Amino acid sequence: MILQHAEALCARRLILASASPRRKEILGNLGLKFDVVVSNFDEDLDKSTFTGGAEYASATATHKAMEVATRLEKEKPAPFVVIGADTVVEGPDGAILEKPKDANEAMKMLLSLQGITHQVHTGVGVIFPNNGGGGERLVKTFSETTKVTFAPLGEAEIAAYIKTGEPFDKAGGYGIQGPAGAFVSSISGCYFNVMGFPVHKFADVVSKMIKEGVIQP
Amino acid sequence: MILQHAEALCARRLILASASPRRKEILGNLGLKFDVVVSNFDEDLDKSTFTGGAEYASATATHKAMEVATRLEKEKPAPFVVIGADTVVEGPDGAILEKPKDANEAMKMLLSLQGITHQVHTGVGVIFPNNGGGGERLVKTFSETTKVTFAPLGEAEIAAYIKTGEPFDKAGGYGIQGPAGAFVSSISGCYFNVMGFPVHKFADVVSKMIKEGVIQP
Repeated sequence: MILQHAEALCARRLILASASPRRKEILGNLGLKFDVVVSNFDEDLDKSTFTGGAEYASATATHKAMEVATRLEKEKPAPFVVIGADTVVEGPDGAILEKPKDANEAMKMLLSLQGITHQVHTGVGVIFPNNGGGGERLVKTFSETTKVTFAPLGEAEIAAYIKTGEPFDKAGGYGIQGPAGAFVSSISGCYFNVMGFPVHKFADVVSKMIKEGVIQP
Repeated sequence: MILQHAEALCARRLILASASPRRKEILGNLGLKFDVVVSNFDEDLDKSTFTGGAEYASATATHKAMEVATRLEKEKPAPFVVIGADTVVEGPDGAILEKPKDANEAMKMLLSLQGITHQVHTGVGVIFPNNGGGGERLVKTFSETTKVTFAPLGEAEIAAYIKTGEPFDKAGGYGIQGPAGAFVSSISGCYFNVMGFPVHKFADVVSKMIKEGVIQP
């Protein structure tokens, strides 16, 4: 795991390529200190070329991190690591649900999710731009999937939720860490993955890389 | 559900009989405004008289709420509702794990939980002291259980976690919302229940009581 390496990692330059306050909070919980550099990547990959939401999210996450890494790797000190992430909600028909553009779309999304189980995928792209100084760029990509079950919901309570303004910056039109937490009767898998970052898997992947000597924090 | 009743409920006097900042945060997420009045109940029920952790937690939660309700129900206005909760971790051998008293006990607890699945029970006691004015005291008790799976952990990473000081005010010696989130490979059930309050079940129970006319917010 990663907790016992947190001090060593904090002496390096760590970059989170995401504006999400939830991701910042989750990574911060690991005891890591990092700068946020938001990616300019357009997030416009053609969904039809991917076999599913997990693959789409992984590709988007890696593109986000790559854009930031390319911008920063000539700086001194170059970042030790750049972390990108992308979360998508997969609806019951396999459709990828991103952020709803208005209240109507949010109502449609949430009506399609109420009373059933859906999947949330977060893809992560981790880039070590200059592996150990003068080394090669190292890229690690992975994803995590969590099943989320919503209780049956009526239009009145969905409307009350939409009035809070919560749905509009969130994939699938809801944020599990806010009032919509009450909609969720159960989840199966990693909770933090639904919030936007699969912290256990990330810690596991990075600590294995340290253990195997692939990276030296 | 409860979101569409939040405004009406906020016009009443709502009391949370718990000092836990996590419970305050979870209830606040529902849009509810309430006062915290910490219970003087000793939390010393004889565990051997209960069939399991869920029953023990429910009884403790109800005693906590009852002590506060008894103190406050003569005030004007009397509280509309007093909410008590108690969370326990059930170890692999059925032992109830409460807050560790020192680093040694925390290490023992966390070593007993690493690499396996355990259960977290939160009991909730909801008391309507003066049902509708001059009415009878109404008591509702329930519990929720969530399964939590820890990744295999070594002593070094547990020691690093204990050094953060996190374990000592938390049942089972860990808080899922902090650095220990990285230890958890998956959960099955309500996440907020592990944090300390089963928000979905609470919202469900209260909204059913409103729907059936048992209480009028």
